[in-house]
Amino acid sequence: MRLGLIGLGKMGSRIAIKLLKEGYEVVVWNRSKAVAEKFKIHSSLQGSTLQRLKVAKTIKELITKLRKPRIVWLMLPAGPPTEEILKQVSKFVEKGDIIIDGGNSYYKETQRRYKSFKKKGIKFLGIGVSGGIIAEKTGYPLMVGGDKSAYDYIKPILNSLSKPKGGHEYFGEGGAGHFVKMIHNGIEYGIMQSLGEGFEVLEKAPYKLDLLKVAKLYQRGTLVSGFMLDRATEVLSKDSTLSSIEGYIEESGEARWTIDQAKEEGVPVEIIEKSLEFRKRSQKDEKIQESFTARMIAALRNAFGGHPVRHPSAPLRIKAQGEPVRLAPSRGGQAR
Amino acid sequence: MRLGLIGLGKMGSRIAIKLLKEGYEVVVWNRSKAVAEKFKIHSSLQGSTLQRLKVAKTIKELITKLRKPRIVWLMLPAGPPTEEILKQVSKFVEKGDIIIDGGNSYYKETQRRYKSFKKKGIKFLGIGVSGGIIAEKTGYPLMVGGDKSAYDYIKPILNSLSKPKGGHEYFGEGGAGHFVKMIHNGIEYGIMQSLGEGFEVLEKAPYKLDLLKVAKLYQRGTLVSGFMLDRATEVLSKDSTLSSIEGYIEESGEARWTIDQAKEEGVPVEIIEKSLEFRKRSQKDEKIQESFTARMIAALRNAFGGHPVRHPSAPLRIKAQGEPVRLAPSRGGQAR
Repeated sequence: MRLGLIGLGKMGSRIAIKLLKEGYEVVVWNRSKAVAEKFKIHSSLQGSTLQRLKVAKTIKELITKLRKPRIVWLMLPAGPPTEEILKQVSKFVEKGDIIIDGGNSYYKETQRRYKSFKKKGIKFLGIGVSGGIIAEKTGYPLMVGGDKSAYDYIKPILNSLSKPKGGHEYFGEGGAGHFVKMIHNGIEYGIMQSLGEGFEVLEKAPYKLDLLKVAKLYQRGTLVSGFMLDRATEVLSKDSTLSSIEGYIEESGEARWTIDQAKEEGVPVEIIEKSLEFRKRSQKDEKIQESFTARMIAALRNAFGGHPVRHPSAPLRIKAQGEPVRLAPSRGGQAR
Repeated sequence: MRLGLIGLGKMGSRIAIKLLKEGYEVVVWNRSKAVAEKFKIHSSLQGSTLQRLKVAKTIKELITKLRKPRIVWLMLPAGPPTEEILKQVSKFVEKGDIIIDGGNSYYKETQRRYKSFKKKGIKFLGIGVSGGIIAEKTGYPLMVGGDKSAYDYIKPILNSLSKPKGGHEYFGEGGAGHFVKMIHNGIEYGIMQSLGEGFEVLEKAPYKLDLLKVAKLYQRGTLVSGFMLDRATEVLSKDSTLSSIEGYIEESGEARWTIDQAKEEGVPVEIIEKSLEFRKRSQKDEKIQESFTARMIAALRNAFGGHPVRHPSAPLRIKAQGEPVRLAPSRGGQAR
């Protein structure tokens, strides 16, 4: 099976590698040619696996290299980058072809694109991809919405991507998959904020607690154990005081969309709202940036998604300096 | 090894059974004799395992049945019940004996008790027990504070209780273990509220989503996967609309304590505070009781801790009636 992959960011490059290793022929294209060339060199792929990788110079070339029905998978930041590339892709695809948006697009955009492509006979899928950068190994959880026949057709690809412990599910037409992913991200904000707050109270406890030991014990089947606590444990094992992290927290839109959606539905989502507010405040308020809560959340974002963290210009008022958190390379591609 | 166990509630009875199966001799006592007798009959223990169980008629009898240094494990609701029984136990124990409070006691109480027992040469441990009722099978996560030599002495017991996937850790003297458990419960409140809010937005989505399918996909390595999402999946698999649940949510104190602690430390814990407020409001406000968020949280509490749920007197305005959630028996013992 052959497919085209557009966008070699943190998620896209890992998806390409996973598919190549699973035996697929993958034609890639990236806005920056340098990134695409580097990818080929640094992908650590060898032999026949490497031979299955083709780097296209243009979107047109990528599409002409595919067989009908063509499968074009976009893994780009949501919004204008996705919109722009979709426009270009739509010039070259034909009736029956399949376009997949694996980024974190707003479900209403996906709904609109699905309808518009459907009119042209193009099968459009919006897939919410979660699991962070470690999902290359653990398997991607994939939330699918859009054209059902396209979902059925690409199932082998989804099976491969979700190996060994991920999964995929079809949630309905249009933007249903991206809707399910959007809510996932809203919940994620609340979980991260809860962990951040709890660990800050632990950090300032009247007992001299080893936060790494606490996190490790919390992992052993407690009610707060899970993916995000595992990341907290990773982060604390590298820097148990998080003194190398500045609590400047970016946010990529999904929580805002969840809150807007909740308003449309008349649902109060106080926790998700407060979590988003905290992030926005962290971008301006130095006191918040220095707080353990904010540093924990920034460190968690780096741990699961490779999102960049800032480092304090002056050392924070912290007892001991830990080893700095190693940054995963940041090169676009926002899905997590 | 022989130990005494006081309190045969949801957690205490399971701990007793696990220890008996692991080869310990366990002398039990319960405030209600009927419960203690029923426990012997319904414990489904047989042969030599059953023979290792002794039911004491009085606390004095329980303690005289033990060998020195005696180990007395209390598994009681925090506050007056624990205080009262500790007073009685303290009449019969002697220098070198070990008393363990495995309930959800406030860490400042544990600190006070630890000091007071220390003066008398009694070794006191406060152990935060998590993992809910399923931890009988998965293994208890145990957060230990108090007398270090007592911790070392009872390690075989903790090893047995934490089999196969739980764990134990010593966090320091006095109330350190209960402190770590208290924060765990504060974080837990935030995680449950986040899931509740997210699932309510999903439930009212413009797409007809199968919430059980969503929860199952979320389990496959997404950023929101974990213990609490596993419980959400259980709950939704029994009643995918939660129509049999009333959103009346009890709260047992630990989040309040976490918030008080945060105030003492000058740490803002907005998410934990909002989650507690929501529960308090759910006890008065019918609109909240009908909300999916509140029903989800009430159902989760039942799923992990066997905490009782109320059922709506009139069917809720919901599309389909699911099978009612089966209640675990509620008989005191508040740890989870």
